[in-house]
Formats: sequence, structure tokens, C-alpha cells
Amino acid sequence: MSDNQIGIIGLAVMGANLARNFASRNIKTAVYNRTFQRTEELINNHGNEFLNGYEKIEDFVNSLAKPRKIILMVKAGAAIDQVIEELKPFLSEGDYVIDGGNSFYEDTEKRVKKCKEYGLNFIGMGISGGEEGALKGPSLMPGITKEDWPKFENILDQIAAKDFQGQACVTPLGYGGVGHYVKMVHNGIEYAIMQMIAEIYDYHRKVKGLDAGQIAEIFEKINQSENQSFLSEITVQVLRRKDIESGKFLVDLILDRASQKGTGGWTSIEAIKNGIPTTTIMEATMSRSLSFLKNERNNFSKIIGRTFNDDEASVDWNQIYRFGSSIAFIQGFELLKEASKEHNWDLDFVEVCRIWQGGCIIRTKMLIELQEMFKKGQKWVELIQNNLEEVKKFILSSTQNEIALPAFSAAYNYFLSMTDKDHPANLIQGLRDYFGAHTFERIDKEGIFHENWLNE
Amino acid sequence: MSDNQIGIIGLAVMGANLARNFASRNIKTAVYNRTFQRTEELINNHGNEFLNGYEKIEDFVNSLAKPRKIILMVKAGAAIDQVIEELKPFLSEGDYVIDGGNSFYEDTEKRVKKCKEYGLNFIGMGISGGEEGALKGPSLMPGITKEDWPKFENILDQIAAKDFQGQACVTPLGYGGVGHYVKMVHNGIEYAIMQMIAEIYDYHRKVKGLDAGQIAEIFEKINQSENQSFLSEITVQVLRRKDIESGKFLVDLILDRASQKGTGGWTSIEAIKNGIPTTTIMEATMSRSLSFLKNERNNFSKIIGRTFNDDEASVDWNQIYRFGSSIAFIQGFELLKEASKEHNWDLDFVEVCRIWQGGCIIRTKMLIELQEMFKKGQKWVELIQNNLEEVKKFILSSTQNEIALPAFSAAYNYFLSMTDKDHPANLIQGLRDYFGAHTFERIDKEGIFHENWLNE
Repeated sequence: MSDNQIGIIGLAVMGANLARNFASRNIKTAVYNRTFQRTEELINNHGNEFLNGYEKIEDFVNSLAKPRKIILMVKAGAAIDQVIEELKPFLSEGDYVIDGGNSFYEDTEKRVKKCKEYGLNFIGMGISGGEEGALKGPSLMPGITKEDWPKFENILDQIAAKDFQGQACVTPLGYGGVGHYVKMVHNGIEYAIMQMIAEIYDYHRKVKGLDAGQIAEIFEKINQSENQSFLSEITVQVLRRKDIESGKFLVDLILDRASQKGTGGWTSIEAIKNGIPTTTIMEATMSRSLSFLKNERNNFSKIIGRTFNDDEASVDWNQIYRFGSSIAFIQGFELLKEASKEHNWDLDFVEVCRIWQGGCIIRTKMLIELQEMFKKGQKWVELIQNNLEEVKKFILSSTQNEIALPAFSAAYNYFLSMTDKDHPANLIQGLRDYFGAHTFERIDKEGIFHENWLNE
Repeated sequence: MSDNQIGIIGLAVMGANLARNFASRNIKTAVYNRTFQRTEELINNHGNEFLNGYEKIEDFVNSLAKPRKIILMVKAGAAIDQVIEELKPFLSEGDYVIDGGNSFYEDTEKRVKKCKEYGLNFIGMGISGGEEGALKGPSLMPGITKEDWPKFENILDQIAAKDFQGQACVTPLGYGGVGHYVKMVHNGIEYAIMQMIAEIYDYHRKVKGLDAGQIAEIFEKINQSENQSFLSEITVQVLRRKDIESGKFLVDLILDRASQKGTGGWTSIEAIKNGIPTTTIMEATMSRSLSFLKNERNNFSKIIGRTFNDDEASVDWNQIYRFGSSIAFIQGFELLKEASKEHNWDLDFVEVCRIWQGGCIIRTKMLIELQEMFKKGQKWVELIQNNLEEVKKFILSSTQNEIALPAFSAAYNYFLSMTDKDHPANLIQGLRDYFGAHTFERIDKEGIFHENWLNE
């Protein structure tokens, strides 16, 4: 009987949890894993009439109702292409292969084309929410067209998280690489907000001399506000966690080197290529790279003795968190806007704000306001102009106390530059014309000009 | 008679000036241009026994002594490959084709390989100095090996600029893409320093209310100091230049939108890929992109009224310029170090500092100190630690007065982070382990750890 409604290939934690999520909604789910042992384990522990394991890929494929829908939860990269080739002999025209990993969107676009030649539909779908989200309800960012959506709506709606209105955090974003692009930018925003949280933490431990438990209170207050977010919530839990053995705060025992798995860097590279200043995301990505230079930091800190003094500055952390997070979102949206234009994706930003409200790592109540902003065509500066004074206080105090604030400085500088009609680029243009004859435009007449600078 | 010592293809301004430079040193130079008219013009105006033009590429090639040395001064990209194919039938084994444009180093590496298959030597050579440098003495960054150097030393030494010791600003940097890589990073540093100059200018016109002529005085003082640089020199000239028609300062009439031709972006992308925080270069690149959003800046400035007040801050601009420029150089060198390691270039940084001392856009007396630093194995923080207080004052005053300082903020934050043994990345690692099971290291024991955060 070919009545499984969805198939999942790859049963590492994310794949296994996603399969259990489908089955828990009474959606008949077929699972397959290269190593059959994993399939057996999943079925032994969680198998029921809605969760069926297969040892052979052919049987797995044949168990699925047509058009088949198979979600790949395997490592991004060559493994995806390999699985496509393995599946191909058993698939029928019009079947759907869905990549649920963090693939680079250009790879997804190539696979869409290749699969089309095979008579297959390839879909890139961003999934956010980590292990728990996969199991209980992730945010789904599928590159599915409105035409194909009715074939998926029912099953994806059921497994997705819910937005603040109770609607499913999934929407058909469009054709091609758009789903993976939106997920990439989601991750970039996540980098920026985490870096900002780390900067608030760093200021409090160094300048205010607070311990991790005391710093948790600051984020607890954010959680009680209209700026509540998943990241500020888990920050409280991470800061409060004690190491069982030593009784010390665990965060104080964690090595200060953060690795980056690529999506923050991808977002930054896309921004540079498209000329979109997503500076908070770049600074966050670079700050992780800098954290890795632990030996140099140790050596240099011996040359430059650092002492931190409390200057009694008092600021509203809720406003600061709001300002920083909002700029991170806005910079991400600006990149998405440019990409949408370039690729003709016609992205619906009201919907992007909506599907990020539940399940995903960057979910926050602020997305309600951002959604309204797009609905009403408001300008983003209006959302945070009242928070500027507090951010200024924070940067003044940190500058005075020599605390590095790469992401918050970038956010502040971005706000200042974007609200200033006069950028000093006129001088840069003069210099470039001087040494390289790069020419310039003028404010008082039309045309392209070159000054003969060497003539007196 | 095949006695021309060097050939140049492509007679736009840079190529023509380079050819005239060779000929002026009594080096017999052959020139060729796709459109013969350009060749004729050059020969009519500047031809002599040392500068010979050819209409046919075959005659041009045959006029050169073996092994032939042909410098391509054509547009980077497909044009290079096209010229190689055109030349190929007439070249002999062991001839040298040298790309003097701003090619991306990976393209250069591909061409090295392809030409090797043809039995030819392909060399990527960075040339800096603009039109004037090409004519009177540029800084040359050739990807030539020490083994090949004797074939080039005499002629390249003659046309290059001189360092502060009177030696030629050219050195054999190594094999493959290294010459173009060094030139790319040179340009990235140039972006950062120009942005910093623009920020100092912006502060003075907005906060201090100075006109362009008054601001020129600040850079004039830098020029009198040990931090003198080509860029600060031409800044004085650009700021002082009056528009003939209106009598106004020309810089005030130049449109504040700076374009970027790619190398700043390339440098930034390389830095992201290699995990090297070249934040001043990135912020400078992104600031140019931001300057292009003129319409948005105009619109937003109407919502957020900006007024700038002098807070009577008084700082030493020489120290600030020194601090910022030094960080730009250091970040560039860090990227070069990583690239040298990755590509086995074994770059000689004493030599890089030396060949940038004359001819090129980023030439400055500070390169003498940087050269000494590499010679003596000094740590860079020692060069500028005494300037930190002044930079702090500048950032405090700019923050207070709402002047954006993306590049100087990045430089300040970089110095602070690099001299602090404790980075807040421990919290980031805790968060990543919480939502994604990314694991972390500890400071108190070896190994890779994962905390079961959801267990109370």
C-alpha cells in the first residue's frame, strides 16, 4: 500500500525529530537511513502505525503516495546530490524532493534545474528551531510556489510552530533558492542578536562587576517586556545554570571561542556582493573569528593592562536590546529585499515576519511590530528613534570603560548614517578622482566630472 | 631585430604611461593596442628609439627579445584570456605574460596553470600609483619567484618608485596569485584609510562647523609629522580646491555617493572566508554602499532631525590618524599572513612594508615603523597603545554628537578585543549549545562538552 504521505531520509537528531513530529499529527510517515540501524532504533522507540521504517530505498519510495514528497535531512553539500541520484531510478515524474538542511541557496538553484531535467521537483526548505523545534514545531521556510502549495499546505501546517495569532509558521515563499536564502538571512540575524546579548553581558561583568546570575535578571526583565525573545529567554537559563561538580556558574567555565558554521559568513558575503550594509551581522561574524585568536588576546592583554571601572551609568536595557535587535532585523530585511529584486522572488515581508514568530531561534514579540511596519508601509527609523538616547549612553559608558561593542557600535553607526542626508563620501569621491581619475557627480549640475587636480 | 626588452598590450592611460615610463629609462619597449589608432597616438606624441608601436600582434611579438616579457594592461576579466589566446600562436616556450591589472587572484592562479600547459609563464603583478605612478614610478607587486627574478630585476627596478632608503619599490613576492592578492589587500587598506579620513572630515564640518579649507589644516599637520602619507597629502589638496565657476570649495559640490570597484569587497570576502577580522576594511566597504542609499538617507533625515553641537572636545588628530591607519595596515597584514600560510607563499612582510613605501596610494612614513616591527618581531599593540586615549576622546565626542564613525569604531573595538583575554564568546557558545547542541570547550578540563539544558 502506497499511503505514506511524507518520506524522510536521514535520521540524525533533526531528521528523526521531524519524522516523529509528522507521525504525532497522524500523518503517515516513511523513514529511511543509509545505516539501517538508525531506522530500527527510531522505529523501536517511537514506531507506530504513522511511523514506518524501510531498509531499502526502493521500498521506502514505493511506500509513498504520489506525487511523492521526500524530505532530505542529510548533511548539506555533496550528500544531497548523492541521495538525489540514488532516489532517481525509483521516482516518478512530478515527485517532490525537499532539502531541509542549511544548503547554500545557489546550490539549491542548481539542483532545482537539474531535477527539472529529471522530471522532478526540487524544493529548498529552511527549517529553524533546533532539535526541539523539529520535534514540537519548527519555523518552516519552504521555496514552494503558490501553485504547488495546496499539495503541502495541510501536512506542513500541522507540524509547524504557531505565530502569535495561532497560524502555522510556514508559507510558500516562492520558487528556487528563496527558502534557503531566507533561512540564511535568519541565521545572520541570529548571529547579530547573539553578539549583542554577549556585549550586554560583557559590559555588566566587566564594568558593573555582576556575576552571571545577576546579569540574568537584566534579560529576565526583557522577557517580561514587549521585546521578549527566545534568545533572551535562553540567555537567562544559560546564565543561571550552575556546574554541578564545582557549583560555579557554567558560563564562567565555557571557553570563550565561538565557532561559526558558515551561515553568518554567507550572509555577510551576499551583503557585500549586493552592496547592502548588514554591518551588525558582519561584525558579529568577525567577532566570532576574533574570539578564536585566544593566544594573541592573552599575549596582548599582558602588554595592555586592562582595568574596568564602574562609571555609575544607568541605562534601560530593554530599550537597548530593542534598538540592537531591530537594526539586526532591518539589515537582514534590506538584504532580503535586494535579493528578492535580483531573483524576482517577490518576497512577502509581512509573511516573513509572521513565520519567524514561532519555532525559530530569532522569534520575538518585536516581529509583531515589524510585521505591522511592513503592512502599513511605516519607516523603520520610527520604531526605534525613541531608543537612541539609551543606546548612546551605553556606547558612551562602554567607550569610556574600554569595552568592545562591535555589533552595537555598528547598529548605532548605521542608524546615524541612515538618518543623515550628508555622508562624507563626497571627500572619498574627490580622493578617488585625484589619484585614479574615477570621476564624480555633483550636487549642482548633471553629469560625470573629472577635475584636473594637478593643475594649480 | 628582436631587441625590444618589454612589450605592453593595452594603451589606455595606465598602459600608455607605463610604456612611457619604461622608454624614459632607455628600455626598448614595444606597444600594441587592439585599435591601432591608440598606438599611433602614443607613438606620434611620445615615440622615440625606445618606444616602438606595432599594428599587428605578430610583429609586436616578433620584435621582442626572448624570453619575451609582455605586460597586459587590459581590463580584468575575459579580456585577459582573450589576449592570451591571441598571443599564443606567436609565443615561444618560456615566454612571460604578465597581467598588470586588478585581476582576482584566483583567476590569476587559473591562468598560471593554463599557461603552464601552453609552455608559457604567466605572472600576476599588482601595480599601484594611479596614472601618475605608472608614468613616474609605481609600486610593483609581482607574483614572480626568486628563481625568475634575475630576468626582471633590472627592468622593473628602473621603472619602480623608490622606498625611503632609495631602493626600488618592487620585489619578487612568490609564485601564482600572490602579487594580485597583495595588491587586493593594498586596496582594502586604502578603503579603510580613506574612510577614516572621511570620518575626521565629517566630524569637523558637522561638530566643529569648519569649512573645507580649515579642515585641510588638520591634515597639513599630519603631513608635517612622522605619520605623513600620500592620502593625507592629497586630502589637503582636495579640501583646498575651489570650484572655478562658483568660487565654492569643490568638495562641497561633489555628490556624497562613493562607488566601489570591487577590491574592497574582495578583501572583505577573503577575510570572511579565512576568518580574519579585517573590520575596518569591511566597514569602509559597507560605508560606501550605504552612501549610495541617498534617497533613503534624505527621507529618514526628515524624520530624525539632526543637529550637531560642539562639545569643545580637543584631541590630537595626528595620534588619531596614526591609530586608525595602523589598525587598517595590521588587519590587512593579518589577512596576508593567513593567505600566505594557506597558499604556501612564504610572504616576506618586511619586503611588503618596503615596496609600499613609494609609488602606491597607501604609502606613508608609518611603513618605516611597520617594517621595523616585522624586522624586530615587535607586537603591533606596542606601536599604538599610547594613542588609545586620544581615539577614545574622539569616539566619545562623536558618539555624544551623533556622528557615525564606522571605521574608527571598528578600529577601537578591534584594539580593545585583541587586548582583552576574556571575550564574551563563552556566552555565545552556551546559547549555541542550548538551541543547537553545538557543544563547547571548557577552561577547567579538556574535551568537548554538551550540557543537557532542558533538564532542571
